[in-house]
Amino acid sequence: MNLIGHGRVEIIERVRKFREFRELQKIEVKRQIAHEIISIAYGFLSPLKGFMTYDEVDSVINEMRLPNSILWPIPIVFDLTSKINAKEGDIIGITYLGKPLAIMEVKEIFSYDKVKMAERVYKTKDVKHPGVKRTLNYADKFLAGDIWLINEPIFNVPYSNFWLTPRMHREVFEKKGWKRIVVFQTRNVPHTGHEYLMKYAWFAANENEKVDEPKTGILVNVVIGEKRIGDYIDEAILLTHDALSKYGYISKKVHLLSFTLWDMRYAGPREAVLHTIIRSNLGCTHHVFGRDHAGVGNYYSPYEAHKIFDNIDERDLLIKPIFLRENYYCPKCGSIENEILCDHKDEKQEFSGSLLRSVILDEVKPTKIVMRPEVYDILMKTAKEYGLGSPFVTEEYLEKRQKIFELGEE
Amino acid sequence: MNLIGHGRVEIIERVRKFREFRELQKIEVKRQIAHEIISIAYGFLSPLKGFMTYDEVDSVINEMRLPNSILWPIPIVFDLTSKINAKEGDIIGITYLGKPLAIMEVKEIFSYDKVKMAERVYKTKDVKHPGVKRTLNYADKFLAGDIWLINEPIFNVPYSNFWLTPRMHREVFEKKGWKRIVVFQTRNVPHTGHEYLMKYAWFAANENEKVDEPKTGILVNVVIGEKRIGDYIDEAILLTHDALSKYGYISKKVHLLSFTLWDMRYAGPREAVLHTIIRSNLGCTHHVFGRDHAGVGNYYSPYEAHKIFDNIDERDLLIKPIFLRENYYCPKCGSIENEILCDHKDEKQEFSGSLLRSVILDEVKPTKIVMRPEVYDILMKTAKEYGLGSPFVTEEYLEKRQKIFELGEE
Repeated sequence: MNLIGHGRVEIIERVRKFREFRELQKIEVKRQIAHEIISIAYGFLSPLKGFMTYDEVDSVINEMRLPNSILWPIPIVFDLTSKINAKEGDIIGITYLGKPLAIMEVKEIFSYDKVKMAERVYKTKDVKHPGVKRTLNYADKFLAGDIWLINEPIFNVPYSNFWLTPRMHREVFEKKGWKRIVVFQTRNVPHTGHEYLMKYAWFAANENEKVDEPKTGILVNVVIGEKRIGDYIDEAILLTHDALSKYGYISKKVHLLSFTLWDMRYAGPREAVLHTIIRSNLGCTHHVFGRDHAGVGNYYSPYEAHKIFDNIDERDLLIKPIFLRENYYCPKCGSIENEILCDHKDEKQEFSGSLLRSVILDEVKPTKIVMRPEVYDILMKTAKEYGLGSPFVTEEYLEKRQKIFELGEE
Repeated sequence: MNLIGHGRVEIIERVRKFREFRELQKIEVKRQIAHEIISIAYGFLSPLKGFMTYDEVDSVINEMRLPNSILWPIPIVFDLTSKINAKEGDIIGITYLGKPLAIMEVKEIFSYDKVKMAERVYKTKDVKHPGVKRTLNYADKFLAGDIWLINEPIFNVPYSNFWLTPRMHREVFEKKGWKRIVVFQTRNVPHTGHEYLMKYAWFAANENEKVDEPKTGILVNVVIGEKRIGDYIDEAILLTHDALSKYGYISKKVHLLSFTLWDMRYAGPREAVLHTIIRSNLGCTHHVFGRDHAGVGNYYSPYEAHKIFDNIDERDLLIKPIFLRENYYCPKCGSIENEILCDHKDEKQEFSGSLLRSVILDEVKPTKIVMRPEVYDILMKTAKEYGLGSPFVTEEYLEKRQKIFELGEE
């Protein structure tokens, strides 16, 4: 049995303590916890080795640091939706959809003031905020402890084409000869404005490196997790970003596409900080932050996720943030521009995600100034193949979508 | 009498040594020497305080360094086209167009192997190379020594609108709050490809600086000096670059236009190194190097001016070079692209300076994909006003062009 997680020596010790998964007390987890177990085990959420204790949660929400002073903005907690009988040091088995997934060494079972947790992280108590709602909906007890994955997920197509663990990311970067990697996070089907964010970010990350053989790459890292009605379906996000390089709009020389399993918390500035940690774990050196990063509604100002970095010592960051203003199409320049470099503010035509969605809903091909024709075609093909006819998440998609990954019987 | 040059204490000593300009032995200089005296005195060519000695020339052509080990790639020499009687320590007067210009403290009068000088600097002896030709045409004796300007040039319109000494450059940068300044050198009327070189360079120089209040600026620094038939006239280069920001194509927030008096040597890689020195003297932090920088004909490969920096320790450079590939118009992307970031190489439409010139010669307005309409209009207006009807240098222009600057009687 392979144990995916941290520290070889530790693993051997743990292995001694339990013989067979079937002999362990077991607990079935929901999707969020299963995804986070996978992300922790592969190192996406390093230095976390498991779910947080009371002291860790307390330190994170109050200080935005772990008790060992490492920067960490959002509690990663395992809320106990079923009862277990466990004390510190016990090893328990974790199942997902009835299949073995992981083992855990229990550290603590604790309660925490969920309103306080929500308010500190999201700067609001408003239950309409999806992160606040998620927090308040947590069960009353939290289970803390380190985890080891014992059953690796087998991803289904198209996810399997883009699945890379942090270690695999680093290996690919090494092979490509990239010394600098700027990550573009997305949950969107790309419009042309996104392309130029990536291209400008490439120049920002490349700084004064020679460009004969590019040593700077762009990682498009899609966040795959809980979906909301009206979101683009996951399969479409992946396959349309893939189309951008397939059809040459962003050169294959500098483009790589992958994903991270993570339920968006919409925590705006604090989530931006978490994204720097996840992406530095992938080996990235630079992270794009545009307008409304990880925000929702009007809870955060458009560039609040930029401002939080004013108060973070750059020695605490393992990645360089690249702050970009929103792009627009400038009919006068005839190109995608932004308020810093072009003065034709009065004529600017902003990219409107909602307008674009409504055009697509009507099955109208958007102008190629806004969306590449190949991106639209693949979006519509993906809708048929994976979205039950819709490029957007519907109730039916949530019910019937194909699984992202399978677990073997182990 | 103001003495423009280096070191107050030194000046006072020198002033003691000469009473009146009219009492001095005088020498009349040609345009190149006059321009270089001005550039030396204001600090464009710092740390040079005057014209080079034999040892300095020898060290520069062999080691690409001054004898004190400071990086310096091109000899700055004063060839003696008229006879003087002078020995080390003598103060002589320098006139230009019959007007007092500067004083010089003689260090040395020497000969140097001009073929060797040409070959080391230009990597060719071919007299068709304009830099080689200039070198071989130098008189047989060179005059070395420090200079002080005693009569400041008064620039004529339109030059006067863009004249900034190194000190004034720094003051303007300070006032604008720019912490990083990326310089774009040009002797061209801008096409859209130039705009995108500047914009991409802006992102490269800005690195991960926040963009709310831009702290990065673009200095367009025009080289004003010896003209060749068919070049754009100087007035047009200045006024069309001015139009780019005037009409909003590059925001005024990030744009500044100025010029340096310098006769292009077309020394390719070595001249690129000189340009880093001049621009660091202006207070710039980054320097754009595109294709064929300071090259001519096929003497240097397209990116040879990039490669020379591989062999220069970055601690010897006072500025960060930004290396950019040539842009092209990509009809598939519908935008200005480059080979690093777009894969549609087969469809690319390269900017052709000569095609553009021939279109303009026929008084045909180029497509706005290539040249902004306001740039074309101003080019044509400038041709009438300053170019005797032509936007390009003609024999007639060389003869009758208005002076760049005047010298008072002092």
